[in-house]
Amino acid sequence: MNDTTVRELKEHIGKTTTVRGWLHKRRDMGGIVFVILRDRTGVVQAVVKDEVEVAKLGGLQNGSVLRLTGNVVDEPRAAGGVELHEPKLEIVSAVSEVMPIEIDKPIDHKSENFDTLFENRAINLRNLSERAIFRVQAAMGQGFRKFFEEREFTEIHTPKLLAGATEGGAEVFKTEYFGQMATLAQSPQFYKQMMVGVFERVFEMGPVYRAEPSVTTRHMSEYISLDAEIGFVDFDELLTMISEALNFMVDYAWKHTREELELLGAQKPKLAKELPRLTMAEIHDLYSKATGENTRDELDLFPAEERWICEYAAKELGSEAVFVTEWPMRDAKFYHLGDEKHPEVAVRADLLFRGIEIVTASMREHRYDVLVKQLREMANGDPESEGFKYYLSAFKYGMPPHGGFAMGLERVTQEMIGLSNVKEATLFPRDTKRLAP
Amino acid sequence: MNDTTVRELKEHIGKTTTVRGWLHKRRDMGGIVFVILRDRTGVVQAVVKDEVEVAKLGGLQNGSVLRLTGNVVDEPRAAGGVELHEPKLEIVSAVSEVMPIEIDKPIDHKSENFDTLFENRAINLRNLSERAIFRVQAAMGQGFRKFFEEREFTEIHTPKLLAGATEGGAEVFKTEYFGQMATLAQSPQFYKQMMVGVFERVFEMGPVYRAEPSVTTRHMSEYISLDAEIGFVDFDELLTMISEALNFMVDYAWKHTREELELLGAQKPKLAKELPRLTMAEIHDLYSKATGENTRDELDLFPAEERWICEYAAKELGSEAVFVTEWPMRDAKFYHLGDEKHPEVAVRADLLFRGIEIVTASMREHRYDVLVKQLREMANGDPESEGFKYYLSAFKYGMPPHGGFAMGLERVTQEMIGLSNVKEATLFPRDTKRLAP
Repeated sequence: MNDTTVRELKEHIGKTTTVRGWLHKRRDMGGIVFVILRDRTGVVQAVVKDEVEVAKLGGLQNGSVLRLTGNVVDEPRAAGGVELHEPKLEIVSAVSEVMPIEIDKPIDHKSENFDTLFENRAINLRNLSERAIFRVQAAMGQGFRKFFEEREFTEIHTPKLLAGATEGGAEVFKTEYFGQMATLAQSPQFYKQMMVGVFERVFEMGPVYRAEPSVTTRHMSEYISLDAEIGFVDFDELLTMISEALNFMVDYAWKHTREELELLGAQKPKLAKELPRLTMAEIHDLYSKATGENTRDELDLFPAEERWICEYAAKELGSEAVFVTEWPMRDAKFYHLGDEKHPEVAVRADLLFRGIEIVTASMREHRYDVLVKQLREMANGDPESEGFKYYLSAFKYGMPPHGGFAMGLERVTQEMIGLSNVKEATLFPRDTKRLAP
Repeated sequence: MNDTTVRELKEHIGKTTTVRGWLHKRRDMGGIVFVILRDRTGVVQAVVKDEVEVAKLGGLQNGSVLRLTGNVVDEPRAAGGVELHEPKLEIVSAVSEVMPIEIDKPIDHKSENFDTLFENRAINLRNLSERAIFRVQAAMGQGFRKFFEEREFTEIHTPKLLAGATEGGAEVFKTEYFGQMATLAQSPQFYKQMMVGVFERVFEMGPVYRAEPSVTTRHMSEYISLDAEIGFVDFDELLTMISEALNFMVDYAWKHTREELELLGAQKPKLAKELPRLTMAEIHDLYSKATGENTRDELDLFPAEERWICEYAAKELGSEAVFVTEWPMRDAKFYHLGDEKHPEVAVRADLLFRGIEIVTASMREHRYDVLVKQLREMANGDPESEGFKYYLSAFKYGMPPHGGFAMGLERVTQEMIGLSNVKEATLFPRDTKRLAP
């Protein structure tokens, strides 16, 4: 387990050292074999000249697992600055078949290649660029947790098997559950709100499920939702906290996975410390003036408008992420808080980042009576039903003003790196057609 | 958002200060009302004497959300060492109905109370002891992640919606998936192994699903599995790493949630640095000698035997956790590695802690040909089927020797605290009857 890693080799120049890993690539040049060995930290070139050792490589295909013991030589032109000379070879696992795909080329994520990409996912992730995506993703998730842990948030784990659909709607997966019918959680919304009554501040990182049959570059039927919910907060404080959290996550990823981000050609996003806030009406107005297309009467933003306003914010406001505020209440969820002075406006914000929505945030209605009324009128819900009565009981017995948000881990990773489809930022994506591997 | 918390009050002695939280309990004593206010950090007593302020409390039930501004007074006999005198009251949310359960008494987890406990879960978690359980759980999870992050493990998120059952068997939940049939993952086993071929070292923390109809104190149909998988490891190193991880998690929880553990009356477990290892035959033999009951021919340990050997290990080996090694291969999974010299023995260990199994660990078969053979012979599996072909492709194109383990977050939390049922260590447990809240 404790062999030297490729990254550590530069500390062993001039010494005989053992490394182990996968045969990533090889070139045979008249009796000499150049072996590129890959481990979890990178790749190193080994120069094999000895006849006996070269013979061991006969018939070995890429993917074979090797242990090489040789002399570490300073080589400024090589990746990592070293080479391994005249190693003795131990074959740990021999691969005899040629891989169905190449993994030593830059990744090509054209959508017409997705079937091949995902059909061979366990292998193509061995591509250094491909795996780098998921190192960045892991860092983004760690950054998220660290930010909220440091602010006295309690991490919770809420059930994904539910008696009813979380937020109403038909787009839920259903499963037989010991003679009952269960649904898969579309979000931890109700649970995280109930837990504000217990812990004040909670966060969760876990899968959610959407049975939407939509085929887009931004939707999947299973993804990781980063959720937080905060008691005794107002809207201004909520948006400030989201601004700080995103800045923290981005800085964290650029600190801990800079090498991976550079390999992927990612540009560190320009983010204002306090992310700018524009109302939906302001955005419609700016967009309509700029393009001549009139969107002023729309209840939502178009994808083209989302991209445009992000470009505008990057250029004019110095930030590649921008909040959209003042959403129409008639398009709101029943648990959204209406604006006190303008009841037609929901106290909600979406955060757009590099052209797509990565966060939905809102203040929640915390007054029991108003919440019951909104449930009935806006969602046609029955307060006594299994799907709502437990949720409502938290409010009946005292809830403070609170708000929260959800962020898609794959989407924020996608936009950090600059990938064109959210599935590229997912180890094993799930869509209407794909359920394996 | 940034009001003073109850815990911080001791830094404000002699000053007029505002705190906010829930009316946890009240005593009315001839014109004076003693209010116990709860926030995320603890409770404080406020002494309300002023007629106008006392009048505001008229009709207010526990759970009401209040903001109190008063004078912080040194009071060594009070919890936290302070009291709040003569506060002005602001009613943030008024509760008018009496809670269906009391939350200011020590928790009573008799199994006959479970229905009441879980029916009112959103409220009973406001009990200081009840919520303390989940602060400990959060710390255990954080400790797990920190341990593996520090050792260059990559955190992964694998899908819970699958085309086939992970490990065969009928005990899976099934769901309709865009015209296909999907199952819910029983474990991330195949995925974490495939990812050893990419990252060498991976861990995951996420839900898993078991459709077992068993009604016991240790089973649920949804729980959080802490998984790790390690390439280039041998069995000895694997068990050492698990020993270190458990010690780390326990120390981490006792460092970060000592107050909660003390409130719960938990005893810090005695753990050897290197957890002791006993073979199943040795345990059968020790147990048979001690009890007169002959278990020597059994393929598994009985619950009574598990409890007994943990008591034995605590007394004789100085450790409340003990590995059980040398499991019979005929009871093994097809992906388990057989012992080279004793092919009837699987290179597997279960870790027992305070009487129950909290970890299953094993070395995995990494040789493609042997794995295919074992799949066919031990699991009657088809290597070309959707459920297995992607998994096997990782081995076909090169996998190193590897091993890993899974630990149930709720179980390890339960045993850390000394709870009698794993459901008590679960926010919203799921069993054959319970799907809500």
